[in-house]
Amino acid sequence: GYAVVFLHRNRSLKPFLRHLSTYNFLDLLELDGENQDAPVKVKSEHQKRLSSILRDYEQVQRDRSLLWVEFQSLSEYLHLLQMCSTCLQGLGKSAMLYLAAAVADFYIPKDQMPEHKIQSAEGPLQLSLQLVPKMLEPLVKEWVPEAFVVSFKLETNKDILVSKSLQALDKYQHQLVIANLLETRKREVKLVTTDNCVDISMTTEELSSGHEIEEKIVRELASLHSKFCSPDGH
Amino acid sequence: GYAVVFLHRNRSLKPFLRHLSTYNFLDLLELDGENQDAPVKVKSEHQKRLSSILRDYEQVQRDRSLLWVEFQSLSEYLHLLQMCSTCLQGLGKSAMLYLAAAVADFYIPKDQMPEHKIQSAEGPLQLSLQLVPKMLEPLVKEWVPEAFVVSFKLETNKDILVSKSLQALDKYQHQLVIANLLETRKREVKLVTTDNCVDISMTTEELSSGHEIEEKIVRELASLHSKFCSPDGH
Repeated sequence: GYAVVFLHRNRSLKPFLRHLSTYNFLDLLELDGENQDAPVKVKSEHQKRLSSILRDYEQVQRDRSLLWVEFQSLSEYLHLLQMCSTCLQGLGKSAMLYLAAAVADFYIPKDQMPEHKIQSAEGPLQLSLQLVPKMLEPLVKEWVPEAFVVSFKLETNKDILVSKSLQALDKYQHQLVIANLLETRKREVKLVTTDNCVDISMTTEELSSGHEIEEKIVRELASLHSKFCSPDGH
Repeated sequence: GYAVVFLHRNRSLKPFLRHLSTYNFLDLLELDGENQDAPVKVKSEHQKRLSSILRDYEQVQRDRSLLWVEFQSLSEYLHLLQMCSTCLQGLGKSAMLYLAAAVADFYIPKDQMPEHKIQSAEGPLQLSLQLVPKMLEPLVKEWVPEAFVVSFKLETNKDILVSKSLQALDKYQHQLVIANLLETRKREVKLVTTDNCVDISMTTEELSSGHEIEEKIVRELASLHSKFCSPDGH
């Protein structure tokens, strides 16, 4: 099994909790009785759902197998990514880095930020956005040169998906790109390496029974990572 | 008392729940025992906090005094604002509309949206943002011409705060602007009307004991609204 360092934005959906994201948490609870000191309990109709989520959550907390690292701003993210990566350097090949999405492609540098609130009365606004530095380059070259590094490529145009993925592998010299299209990403992805392309897809039955494509992605990645770690590379 | 139509963005902080925003909900719960069907219960150390929040929440749900209306996109917001306002028209002067913040000052019209994901490889990005139409104008003139309408003015420069508020009152012909500065907004606001300016502020003691400036704002607004509704205007 893996121990996971989970670098995430503060208000993003989170593991375990994401299954409750459509609920107002207070609707899952009720006061048990009418008097002033009535205790709060979980409504019986939500016991089953919460119990299975909580069981998994308590397990990873007990095992200390999930470290939550939270960021808010882009610069916090960039710093924490470097710090977390550097901490994993000692694991050599055993470390897998899974860079699920660009936190931002563009930003406004601090010295170009206006001092005061922008007045909408002054009419339409021209914004000039700079490129966020690509951290994949120092990450692969300097911070975790031995690790198994996985990046994502999301496109809306399927004709450029694989070529863009191969370009990224060539440019950053990492191990694998998970390539997906915005429209179909929950149903199919490609795991692209320099010499191979594995298609992963979900059937309608699998999707309607609540399974998610990430289960298959993670299984396949664990297998590829295990081959990557074995002395002869198989 | 008031019945409230609460028009809010889907992932915004919400009444009652906002007091729990620093918690992972799952940390408030625990499995009661070790066997497979152990029930989920609220941890005893969180009983008191949850009980007082839940009591207030259940009260408004029971009274049906809070209607949650959720939007996601800007266009959804603009439509729902018109619909909710029109529904309140029949209340005449008894309706108070409290437009707490601009949902967005600028936007990109649909026909100027790129079809495909913007390629960051192509370098820095120039964005041209259009002004969001000011709904306060049709709202006051057409949708709820008799209502007590309150808008907000948030600035970062205190020198323009009152003049901007008076400009808004003159332009939109509504009743009141709550004027505040980004840095001090939790400690002081001004309630600006065409002929008066009421300063509201919180002492350090009030703030440190957990009170919020909104309590005073709401009390003052209710009083002004009540005068506004009375036949002779006092």
